[in-house]
Amino acid sequence: MKTTILERIAALREAMRQQRIDAYIIPSSDPHLSEYPADRWKSRAWISGFTGSAGTVVVTADKAGLWTDSRYFLQAASQLEGTGIELYKMGLPDTPSLTDFLLHELHNGQVVGFDGQTYSAADARALANILGRKEIRIDASADLIEGIWKDRPGIPLNPIFEMPVELSGESTRDKIDRLNNLLRSEGADGLILAALDEIAWTFNIRGTDVTYNPVAVCYAFVSEEESVLFIKPEKLTEEVADRLKREGVTLADYSMIGRYLSRLPENSRVFVDMHKTNVALYDALPKGCTVVEGLSPANRLKSVKNETEIKGFQNAVVKDGVALTKFYFWLERQMKAGEKVTEISAAEKLTALRAEQPQYIMDSFATICGYAEHGAIVHYSATPETDATLRPEGLLLIDSGAQYLDGTTDITRTIALGETTEQMRKDYTRVLKGTISLAKSKFPAGTRGSQIDILARKALWDAGINYLHGTGHGIGHCLNVHEGPQSIRMEENPVTLRPGMVISDEPAMYRAGEYGIRTENMILVRKDSETEFGKFLGFDTLTLCYIDTSLIVLPMLSAREHAWLNRYHRTVYEKLSPYLDEEEKAWLREKTAEI
Amino acid sequence: MKTTILERIAALREAMRQQRIDAYIIPSSDPHLSEYPADRWKSRAWISGFTGSAGTVVVTADKAGLWTDSRYFLQAASQLEGTGIELYKMGLPDTPSLTDFLLHELHNGQVVGFDGQTYSAADARALANILGRKEIRIDASADLIEGIWKDRPGIPLNPIFEMPVELSGESTRDKIDRLNNLLRSEGADGLILAALDEIAWTFNIRGTDVTYNPVAVCYAFVSEEESVLFIKPEKLTEEVADRLKREGVTLADYSMIGRYLSRLPENSRVFVDMHKTNVALYDALPKGCTVVEGLSPANRLKSVKNETEIKGFQNAVVKDGVALTKFYFWLERQMKAGEKVTEISAAEKLTALRAEQPQYIMDSFATICGYAEHGAIVHYSATPETDATLRPEGLLLIDSGAQYLDGTTDITRTIALGETTEQMRKDYTRVLKGTISLAKSKFPAGTRGSQIDILARKALWDAGINYLHGTGHGIGHCLNVHEGPQSIRMEENPVTLRPGMVISDEPAMYRAGEYGIRTENMILVRKDSETEFGKFLGFDTLTLCYIDTSLIVLPMLSAREHAWLNRYHRTVYEKLSPYLDEEEKAWLREKTAEI
Repeated sequence: MKTTILERIAALREAMRQQRIDAYIIPSSDPHLSEYPADRWKSRAWISGFTGSAGTVVVTADKAGLWTDSRYFLQAASQLEGTGIELYKMGLPDTPSLTDFLLHELHNGQVVGFDGQTYSAADARALANILGRKEIRIDASADLIEGIWKDRPGIPLNPIFEMPVELSGESTRDKIDRLNNLLRSEGADGLILAALDEIAWTFNIRGTDVTYNPVAVCYAFVSEEESVLFIKPEKLTEEVADRLKREGVTLADYSMIGRYLSRLPENSRVFVDMHKTNVALYDALPKGCTVVEGLSPANRLKSVKNETEIKGFQNAVVKDGVALTKFYFWLERQMKAGEKVTEISAAEKLTALRAEQPQYIMDSFATICGYAEHGAIVHYSATPETDATLRPEGLLLIDSGAQYLDGTTDITRTIALGETTEQMRKDYTRVLKGTISLAKSKFPAGTRGSQIDILARKALWDAGINYLHGTGHGIGHCLNVHEGPQSIRMEENPVTLRPGMVISDEPAMYRAGEYGIRTENMILVRKDSETEFGKFLGFDTLTLCYIDTSLIVLPMLSAREHAWLNRYHRTVYEKLSPYLDEEEKAWLREKTAEI
Repeated sequence: MKTTILERIAALREAMRQQRIDAYIIPSSDPHLSEYPADRWKSRAWISGFTGSAGTVVVTADKAGLWTDSRYFLQAASQLEGTGIELYKMGLPDTPSLTDFLLHELHNGQVVGFDGQTYSAADARALANILGRKEIRIDASADLIEGIWKDRPGIPLNPIFEMPVELSGESTRDKIDRLNNLLRSEGADGLILAALDEIAWTFNIRGTDVTYNPVAVCYAFVSEEESVLFIKPEKLTEEVADRLKREGVTLADYSMIGRYLSRLPENSRVFVDMHKTNVALYDALPKGCTVVEGLSPANRLKSVKNETEIKGFQNAVVKDGVALTKFYFWLERQMKAGEKVTEISAAEKLTALRAEQPQYIMDSFATICGYAEHGAIVHYSATPETDATLRPEGLLLIDSGAQYLDGTTDITRTIALGETTEQMRKDYTRVLKGTISLAKSKFPAGTRGSQIDILARKALWDAGINYLHGTGHGIGHCLNVHEGPQSIRMEENPVTLRPGMVISDEPAMYRAGEYGIRTENMILVRKDSETEFGKFLGFDTLTLCYIDTSLIVLPMLSAREHAWLNRYHRTVYEKLSPYLDEEEKAWLREKTAEI
């Protein structure tokens, strides 16, 4: 029996009344603060009917609101119709923030509740500080949804599988030793791990519990004393369980993490990444225990890929490049033959071609296939309603990627489907200059991403153009396609770039209502040279896929950029052609021909 | 009667014993945390005999130490000989920090004292936090030096003078109104001003109390209720006093600031820039008063120059350019004639030529005139012992500037005195590419200096070269040649660049033991354009002085850099030639000839 939104909110209000909670917050997060939560934790979608990826619901005794950003204004308005939930459009000058709303609606002494499992310790602390100004209390222990969501999905029980040491390059035992060394140097003796990719990396396991991220729902605690993986036993195969035990890992049920933390010795010094740990875990720590706050050591170690992982990436981009070449070859043929191709059918074809490659697990995110004006919508995702049929003119932007057991990929290309304007070609060349300029840069060890971000933007800025997203995000090794802690963006991030980090290089430009252009490669930070002035680093471009030269205004490229492009195209052809048939090979030779 | 260092330290220890202070810190600062303290506040030099610009002395019952940086290792070692004060070389791996030393030497319950007037509130808080770990207390009210320094100089009594509104472009009343608006928006109702340049700017006054900075020793407090200038009455001329009173300013004695602050209403909300306010003032505030911490509003407003100030700068750089042209013309003649010129005599000649210009007040810092390997010492200051005679070969670096009533200047040029090597010319061209690249950049409003710093370094980084100082610092209007809050450097600084800010543009490179190269212009942030992507800013180069083209490797310049240089040289000639005699004019025409 499916309840209605109105019934659900009424049930929540009844639970709030019983628990003396005056406002209840339902965020989008899961207990691991994941980008993609499993169905069990889609409470916000369940309570409101709004299915977008970002949004927070607040319910009081007489009001209910959803806060979401401009990507979802239309969808939310339509999905909230008749629910009594008001839409708060974030980013508009007149929209009160969620905390402003709470401060306005509640009075001194009232209580704001939420499920502390779905709130980071950092966010909970910030909320408590703001509400504390008006003596409004927070209660992070109130999981009211559990009691009212009768057919709530369970914790995913998909079996986990091995990331073999031949592909990870480092045993779990060695990783745990390095974690303990790092903890010691930070004055801590234990570490809570709640982020699923950090746990997957540490224990050399992978899973299929959520879309796009090959991770499994579990927690972990690492210390000199013992390392415990908290996981539903149903998920463990005998093989994985045996290997973990051999590496000194203790196995415990997923539900035991809270009790385990609460029983740590009083004088423990526990490292907590406040942004990666839910506040329920934080609150479970004994009062006498000292919390060492900082960037999770597992996150830091994971971001620097070892030689084996790098080899894996280098192999994965060949497979990905082959699939992409076959796809773009197919697409050109279909278009020439006048066959109907839409944004969705193109994306499906690309996924199918990737799935044919060895060790393919899943796509690494939902393909963004944006034709013409859809290309200008940064987070565009075609739906049956918007699904555009490709025509032999203008620009097509495709941002896509895959999870292979030996590496994760993320690539964007923009291609001409036929006639293009001079403005399109100039814009395209400016973006490409950015991609190349960042890729061939050289910088001292100790440089932060925000220092070199401008290299990807300069040609655009010179023309009075900018894009408002980051230039580069970290990419996991058969893990999350968006990982930290490093980034290349306008905003400051104190994390320095270190050899072995894999990052995206994706300058872009968007003319709303016309077209979007993005040219994205994966780049690997590597040592460049050591001089009397110190150590210098640079990048290797990993991604292998032709760049549409028909869109380039050649005189706008510098001699070095021009040379880089021809060199890149020689490499693309050399690396991919052995895996192509004769027709595809001839086609790729043309696409990568010297210009 | 002059006491010896040993006697002074003995007297200090006796005072410490009487006041129950176990360690006493004597920093280099004055009560205004100035770059150049007046003689009265050179306590550290008096107690130790060490006269360098940076250094801190700590004295305990049985030990005494001086902490200073690598610039002063030799000088300090020599000046400390026989004093019993141990030299702690900062930056060396085995040197304990000053706080490590205190934590090691003292035990729980002991007391560290210092004169709170010479310690910023931010530093005092940091020190208290660190020492608090071992329950060591700080006593910031212990001015022990006053009692033992018998012939201590008094507070400078030099008369202040007017910065006329025709040159400042804004009356004190209007500035105070803007400050009060800013305070209101930050939730504060009063502002402590202790930084001398902020007070000089607010009250349109200037002084000659210290070298290089045309400021006067005073404090101020600004609020809606009243604005008070705390200054020794001897410093006030009738004219200035009358004008200030007409603008609604209350005058009080310099010594009254502490008592005034302590009598503020209990519910006051006082804005304090913790880095610009000494802890004695902070501690004087009544307990019930709320402190609003942040970047001083006066500092923020001062950094954005108005149209009148910009006109003044544009006038000052013409005068400065004329003096510089006459100087370099003179220098070339002297060298050709085989006349002896040394680093010091060259610097003196340059100062003399600047002093001939209208409205010259003083140099804006000690001229750095570094020949050959001396050019590679970033903070080089020629002494009679090091004073090198210039020879007709290699490179000469001169970094200098002046205070004119209508503007402050700061310029570095590096010139060839004769034969140069290919490496010198390549290095020179790389530095010049940096100067030009930053000067002609364009960036979105909201950009921070650290985002564009790389433009000045890129050509150097590409060659595995770097310089470890900042690229740009703010420059005051007839005020401190180093001012904040903006900067262009590798380190993060959240302050964004705003139209009207004047900043230095000074990439450099140093080959230790060989030569140093720096090419520095002053640049003005200005509006560039507004597009569908937002507002963009750029720079105007203010400095007018030829750049030695004989050192340029032309093929290394891009077409745009080349064009920029020729355009710049046309402007230099046009603006300066009317003030030169025929010989100088002909010479400058050659120096600025198209290349």
